[in-house]
Amino acid sequence: MTTTAAVVGASGYGGGELIRFLDAHPEFSTGILGAHSKAGSTLGQVHPHLAGGNRELVSFEPDRFAEVDVAFLALPHGASAKPAMQLLERGVKVVDLGSDFRLSTPQRYLEAYGAEHPYPDQLGEWAYGIPELFADAVVASDRVSAPGCYPTSAVLAIAPMAAGGLIGLEGIVVDALSGVSGAGRGVSEATSFGAIDESVKAYKILQHRHQPEMMQAIGDYSGAPVELVFTPHLVPMQRGILSTIYMTVTEGTTIHDIHTAFDKVYGDQPFVRLSEVPPETRWVVGSNNALISYHLDEASHRLIAVSAIDNLVKGAAGQAVQCANLMFGFDQGAGLPTEGWMP
Amino acid sequence: MTTTAAVVGASGYGGGELIRFLDAHPEFSTGILGAHSKAGSTLGQVHPHLAGGNRELVSFEPDRFAEVDVAFLALPHGASAKPAMQLLERGVKVVDLGSDFRLSTPQRYLEAYGAEHPYPDQLGEWAYGIPELFADAVVASDRVSAPGCYPTSAVLAIAPMAAGGLIGLEGIVVDALSGVSGAGRGVSEATSFGAIDESVKAYKILQHRHQPEMMQAIGDYSGAPVELVFTPHLVPMQRGILSTIYMTVTEGTTIHDIHTAFDKVYGDQPFVRLSEVPPETRWVVGSNNALISYHLDEASHRLIAVSAIDNLVKGAAGQAVQCANLMFGFDQGAGLPTEGWMP
Amino acid sequence: MTTTAAVVGASGYGGGELIRFLDAHPEFSTGILGAHSKAGSTLGQVHPHLAGGNRELVSFEPDRFAEVDVAFLALPHGASAKPAMQLLERGVKVVDLGSDFRLSTPQRYLEAYGAEHPYPDQLGEWAYGIPELFADAVVASDRVSAPGCYPTSAVLAIAPMAAGGLIGLEGIVVDALSGVSGAGRGVSEATSFGAIDESVKAYKILQHRHQPEMMQAIGDYSGAPVELVFTPHLVPMQRGILSTIYMTVTEGTTIHDIHTAFDKVYGDQPFVRLSEVPPETRWVVGSNNALISYHLDEASHRLIAVSAIDNLVKGAAGQAVQCANLMFGFDQGAGLPTEGWMP
Amino acid sequence: MTTTAAVVGASGYGGGELIRFLDAHPEFSTGILGAHSKAGSTLGQVHPHLAGGNRELVSFEPDRFAEVDVAFLALPHGASAKPAMQLLERGVKVVDLGSDFRLSTPQRYLEAYGAEHPYPDQLGEWAYGIPELFADAVVASDRVSAPGCYPTSAVLAIAPMAAGGLIGLEGIVVDALSGVSGAGRGVSEATSFGAIDESVKAYKILQHRHQPEMMQAIGDYSGAPVELVFTPHLVPMQRGILSTIYMTVTEGTTIHDIHTAFDKVYGDQPFVRLSEVPPETRWVVGSNNALISYHLDEASHRLIAVSAIDNLVKGAAGQAVQCANLMFGFDQGAGLPTEGWMP
Repeated sequence: MTTTAAVVGASGYGGGELIRFLDAHPEFSTGILGAHSKAGSTLGQVHPHLAGGNRELVSFEPDRFAEVDVAFLALPHGASAKPAMQLLERGVKVVDLGSDFRLSTPQRYLEAYGAEHPYPDQLGEWAYGIPELFADAVVASDRVSAPGCYPTSAVLAIAPMAAGGLIGLEGIVVDALSGVSGAGRGVSEATSFGAIDESVKAYKILQHRHQPEMMQAIGDYSGAPVELVFTPHLVPMQRGILSTIYMTVTEGTTIHDIHTAFDKVYGDQPFVRLSEVPPETRWVVGSNNALISYHLDEASHRLIAVSAIDNLVKGAAGQAVQCANLMFGFDQGAGLPTEGWMP
Repeated sequence: MTTTAAVVGASGYGGGELIRFLDAHPEFSTGILGAHSKAGSTLGQVHPHLAGGNRELVSFEPDRFAEVDVAFLALPHGASAKPAMQLLERGVKVVDLGSDFRLSTPQRYLEAYGAEHPYPDQLGEWAYGIPELFADAVVASDRVSAPGCYPTSAVLAIAPMAAGGLIGLEGIVVDALSGVSGAGRGVSEATSFGAIDESVKAYKILQHRHQPEMMQAIGDYSGAPVELVFTPHLVPMQRGILSTIYMTVTEGTTIHDIHTAFDKVYGDQPFVRLSEVPPETRWVVGSNNALISYHLDEASHRLIAVSAIDNLVKGAAGQAVQCANLMFGFDQGAGLPTEGWMP
Repeated sequence: MTTTAAVVGASGYGGGELIRFLDAHPEFSTGILGAHSKAGSTLGQVHPHLAGGNRELVSFEPDRFAEVDVAFLALPHGASAKPAMQLLERGVKVVDLGSDFRLSTPQRYLEAYGAEHPYPDQLGEWAYGIPELFADAVVASDRVSAPGCYPTSAVLAIAPMAAGGLIGLEGIVVDALSGVSGAGRGVSEATSFGAIDESVKAYKILQHRHQPEMMQAIGDYSGAPVELVFTPHLVPMQRGILSTIYMTVTEGTTIHDIHTAFDKVYGDQPFVRLSEVPPETRWVVGSNNALISYHLDEASHRLIAVSAIDNLVKGAAGQAVQCANLMFGFDQGAGLPTEGWMP
Repeated sequence: MTTTAAVVGASGYGGGELIRFLDAHPEFSTGILGAHSKAGSTLGQVHPHLAGGNRELVSFEPDRFAEVDVAFLALPHGASAKPAMQLLERGVKVVDLGSDFRLSTPQRYLEAYGAEHPYPDQLGEWAYGIPELFADAVVASDRVSAPGCYPTSAVLAIAPMAAGGLIGLEGIVVDALSGVSGAGRGVSEATSFGAIDESVKAYKILQHRHQPEMMQAIGDYSGAPVELVFTPHLVPMQRGILSTIYMTVTEGTTIHDIHTAFDKVYGDQPFVRLSEVPPETRWVVGSNNALISYHLDEASHRLIAVSAIDNLVKGAAGQAVQCANLMFGFDQGAGLPTEGWMP
């Protein structure tokens, strides 16, 4: 008897990747597919690269979608809270790829999103789905909030250093570059080919909602509150995130200490690996891998980390499936690619 | 007991894809990896996107490589003939991704390549590895010559029409666009980012060696010799081939006849499918699929076909594995992706 | 006293290029700028790459725009006919970059566009603005219809051969690749970065309205009606068109004959030049140049031409200014770039 | 009588841009063109986008090149010192686009480049060619060292703030993204299309020689030594640099103070402008402009600047011509584009 999985928000990029992973998964089988404006379309119309193109996308209805064991929600911000609660009430486990349940207090949510949360009691009740850092919570929970793509890349690199007491907790800079799929599949002039190709830009400077998410996750893991500034950039490529992170190390810290702290957390992990040289995003795109390098200038105590992931895989759909694997007792890597696509 | 496969020419793009497919294959296991100038490197140094990065690339030696059941040769033109024969002598089945054994007579080889073939008796002895058209020969043979990427895309679209007597056999035009990985991984000014990005060009006009290969394959399948002209173009993307093919139909032929002829050949095939609209390369890139559309102007008797494949998958490594699957009695689709990567 | 020029449709790509050329022009000065949905915006808001960003875009009103000597209309199909007539009535010369007045009979217009023309008497009264072929008409006229980008690239290559009686007039194939700016600046999923980057596609197969335009222009120049089929493709780059054109030559025609026919037409022309090797679009992008190569297979009588232009310059704004230069008695190259931007 | 200019290193990207600007310059005329490995080629062979393709590239010989009034040297590091001195001895003014004379003491040179300078007495004798900051030195000198592309973008943004005492002088982070033309035209696997397209990477972390150059220039202008860390990244585009710069402001500093300090330095300058929103590189590519925005978080005292230039124009050839204009008493903007190319 297979375990069935629904995808709500099947027409977007994240939804497409979820379906691709589920279609090839040894344990999950792809169940009902939900869409909003694309309801009534076939899968082939919205994702012509996927097999089974005659599968239909249907509008979300809680009773109908409750037939599955787990639902992946890949919806715009603010749209997952209600269906998530409806599914949980009906005994369906939920992995939310959106940002509705990532922040753990109503106050943080209000500050980041400028609005009251519709289910404030839920904040803090969801596991934050970076399995390498919060596996116990993920395993134990029926509701997991999959992290943002930028936070995944940054938190993986910073958290072990903060937990090990190796870095100063203030003045961290996260400067990140993202492929355009991170902006979603919605149509806008800002993501037109004419606006993106052959150009780069920074956006949402000092205002991006992934900044408080990063701070919370690092603080939760390390037990120490950190202060950081995060600037996202859009670069002309489909996939991939590269975060270059500037920290200062505590007196006497060596690169060996850094690597030891890394191995202590990730030594047994299949997807997060140390790179001796600065990783390129094409080394991870297509896989669920994260590659991280560290570069220390002992004289100035500067520590620079470079962290590369595929924003749609380890930064979204892959990590969501990884969480679901743990929630159902499967191998955490089941159905997930460990080899990328380069070129 | 698994069946083991060697890759000779492991450091190129085709070699990397072969390893990726073999690593995930349910029947084959990845065996010894051969390289020439990169011998002594680890896999991680040449393909940092692949797992098992500490595997070593070694120089080809026939006795050492004879330990496997099948060898995939992904070598520059002219380099596969000798190792192929050495391996065959030692009982190893061979799939050659190069062009050494594609043409079936010494005369054709001489005309196309301007040199005598070192093993002229072998020409005509190799199965031409488009499984959808020449499955019997592939199944029965221990030596298969995997087709060129351009011929795969063009022959799949033309051969059923020629075999069905639906098209004129002269004056066919194949105008094809390729991603840059088709030019291989060798370093040259012509494939530098500065020369490729934001530009397109035609090359080898009236001179490309894939033209006689196309004519031979269509003729072999249909029993009728065809005359065509082929112009390849380089476009700024990594992967994908799109061939736009201009034919004329015989009097009275309808689009229904075209579709019927297509279904007769490919109706049961998992990888070659009819598209109602002109396919885009991103719909197939990452998969072993070929998508083909036909467009008929009944007034002028013009038939235009558009054929899309991933040059490194259906056009190279994927099709080579598909052939090997048949050679060993496995399901022809074993280990091969049926879903692409878009975006 | 300078000659003033208005741009109607200033917010699009073609409008932006017109302003750029006019701002640097030795004879014309940039006058009033018209826009539709962007009326009320500043130039800096829609074209942040241009100087004088505080210039305002205003709604078109015939009396107000009649203050200039010449108006360039860069509007969507169907939108230029009325303002063109209003300006002409007020004594303003007009260069229309749209397609409203390109076809020379109401019947052709009806067949191509599926609608009656609002000013049928005007069809045939406009000069077709390829100065190298129709200079006399352009010089003598107060109304010029600037050609489509695809027709410019194809007609320049074919017309001299047809006029010289060197090619068969049937069965010509024009297979063309365009950068995405050719699709205009309107926002759509089809021109989003996610849909364009790393992919190619053919579109409007057997249906593109530039096909009858090409046939008409070649016929008008050569006096002989030609039959051709045209397939446009979109490739992932901003600018540039490459047309690969398949013809057959009449018995006995040599490559020398081809070159002689070319020189006869373009020998004195500054912008249209013969290339010995297939031109790459990056060799012309940024300039008003057209580069064309010819490749003859004497055995099969096949002649292949490759023609490269910048779709926004020689294919639109540059050629429009070139026409206006002639209409006002200026040097035809005034203000137009003869050197491209590569890389 | 025109002023003549030689280009030494004419075959590279910087050389090509110099020729393009000089060909269109109202005061300079393009004189002799020097090349090393490409000596004997025509201009058309190395820069098919430029006019006058039959001009020949010749080997550098000091007496022959001494016929011009000014020489632009666009050579690899280490190659300009000798020809620069030979030309100066012969009375030719020199603008060196390389890095040989940028650092002002032998000690700094030794630390940055790991070698003794061949003409140590020259260090400190060359004007550092950012005209907006060091115009007096440029005007008065016959030898100008044009800055690196990354330093141009960073120094323009930081120097006025340091000079105004508005920022802390330690802990500055310069995180910069560059198009691939910044790596020069040499052929390498690292700049092949396969390695660059659809990927980003950081390189030379903690080791890039532009870091001491930035610190020196800011210190020289402001009179205060600054400490900063610089990380360059390569992104898949031809041109453009975007630097995102993290500073801290002194207590009480407002965004108004920042803008006032900016205007004080650049208020009269044609090429360096304040942007209210984060600039995109496509807004400046093709022009000699620099666009800079500032973003202040008063609570944390963080100041983020975003600075965009075209690396080959304001970051190289354009700025070099701007310096030469001043050296000869021409308008500093003569011959330089103030409008970019977007798209």
